[in-house]
Amino acid sequence: MIYLPNLLNLKNEIILASASPRRRLLLNLLGINFSTEIANINEDDFVSNEPEKIVMELAHKKAMEISKKFSDKIIIAADTLVFLNNELLTKPIDKNDAYSILMKLSDNTHQVFTGIAIYNPINSKYELDYEKTNVTFRQLDEKEVQTYIDTGSPMDKAGAYGIQDDFGAVFVSKIDGCYYNVVGLPLTKLYLMLKKIGELPSN
Amino acid sequence: MIYLPNLLNLKNEIILASASPRRRLLLNLLGINFSTEIANINEDDFVSNEPEKIVMELAHKKAMEISKKFSDKIIIAADTLVFLNNELLTKPIDKNDAYSILMKLSDNTHQVFTGIAIYNPINSKYELDYEKTNVTFRQLDEKEVQTYIDTGSPMDKAGAYGIQDDFGAVFVSKIDGCYYNVVGLPLTKLYLMLKKIGELPSN
Repeated sequence: MIYLPNLLNLKNEIILASASPRRRLLLNLLGINFSTEIANINEDDFVSNEPEKIVMELAHKKAMEISKKFSDKIIIAADTLVFLNNELLTKPIDKNDAYSILMKLSDNTHQVFTGIAIYNPINSKYELDYEKTNVTFRQLDEKEVQTYIDTGSPMDKAGAYGIQDDFGAVFVSKIDGCYYNVVGLPLTKLYLMLKKIGELPSN
Repeated sequence: MIYLPNLLNLKNEIILASASPRRRLLLNLLGINFSTEIANINEDDFVSNEPEKIVMELAHKKAMEISKKFSDKIIIAADTLVFLNNELLTKPIDKNDAYSILMKLSDNTHQVFTGIAIYNPINSKYELDYEKTNVTFRQLDEKEVQTYIDTGSPMDKAGAYGIQDDFGAVFVSKIDGCYYNVVGLPLTKLYLMLKKIGELPSN
C-alpha cells in the first residue's frame, strides 16, 4: 500500500547521505525505502561565495563521497544553511550565542537554503539543485527566547531554532516558499528531481 | 518539563471545540493540556460573505455553543476553509469531485483561511481573529492525482488535500503565510491570542 514511490522509477536501493533525524522523517513521509550513511566532508570548507552555490557545492561533495563507496546505489545528499542578510548563521556554540542568534532573527526575515544532489548509477543521471525559503519571525521577548534555550533544542540547529519545535512553531509569523525546506528537505523539489533521475534513457 | 505553557497564564482547563485529529496534534505540539468537545453547529449556515468573516463567524458560533455547556473552562474554537478565486472549496463529495478540485488547484494559487475564537471565563476575555495563507500548487499530472485519490486521503479534507500528506507535500510548490494554518490551526496566531486572554485585569 505504498503509493507515491510507485510513481518514481527507482529500481536500485537508495542511500540518504545525512545524519539528520529530521531529514529521515521527511523522506519517510514520502514512503520511500532508504538507508543512511554519513558523508565525512568538512562542511566549513567551500569555495563558493553565494548561499545557493554553497549549499549545492556541499550537497555535491556529500553525494560524491558516498557514491564512491556504494557505486550501485542511488544517492540523495542535502545540505541546509541559514542566512541573515547574507551572513551565515551556524549552530550556536553556547547558550549566549543561541540567545544572540535568536534575537537577531526576531522581527526580521532570514533565508533558509537547501542544496540537493541525487545520483542514479543505473543511467548515470545526476541532478543538482537548491531551494530557498524566506522565514519571518515575529518580535520575540527575552523570556520566551530564554525558555526555548532552556529546553536545549536550539543547540543542535543552524539558526538556533526548529520550525517544527513548540517554540519554533510560535516564533515564525510567516514563510514564503517551501515549508519542508525549513525543516531540512524540500520535498516537492526532491520528488521532481527523483522523477527526473528515474527517467529511462530516451534511446 | 513542559515549558511553553508556563509562559501562558491559563489557570482553567482548556477545551478544544474541534473533532479534527490534525488540530489535536498541533495543540499537542505546544505542550498544552486540553480535552475536546464537538460543537454541533451547521457549518453551511453563515451570513457573512467574505472568507475571513465566514471563518470567524463559524469559529465564534462553535466557541459560544461549547461555552454554554462548560461555563468554567477556556474554550478554543477554530474553523478552516479553502477558497480558490473566492469560490469555497468544500470536502469532495466523491472521487470525481476530488479529481476536479485537485485539477483546479493545479498550477494555481489558492487561499486557506482559519478563524479562531478563544474565551476565558475567569476574566471574561474574548479574542476573535483569523489567519490567511496563500498556497501554490505546481502543475499536477493525471496519474499522480488519481494515485493520491486512490489512497483515500483527499476525501475528508477541504480542498481535497492535506499539506502534511505524502502527495500533498509534493503537490505544494510554495506557501506564503503560516504553514500550520494550512494544516488547520495557525500556531503563532493562537499562541499570541492565548497570551492575551491570560493577561490579568489591569485594575
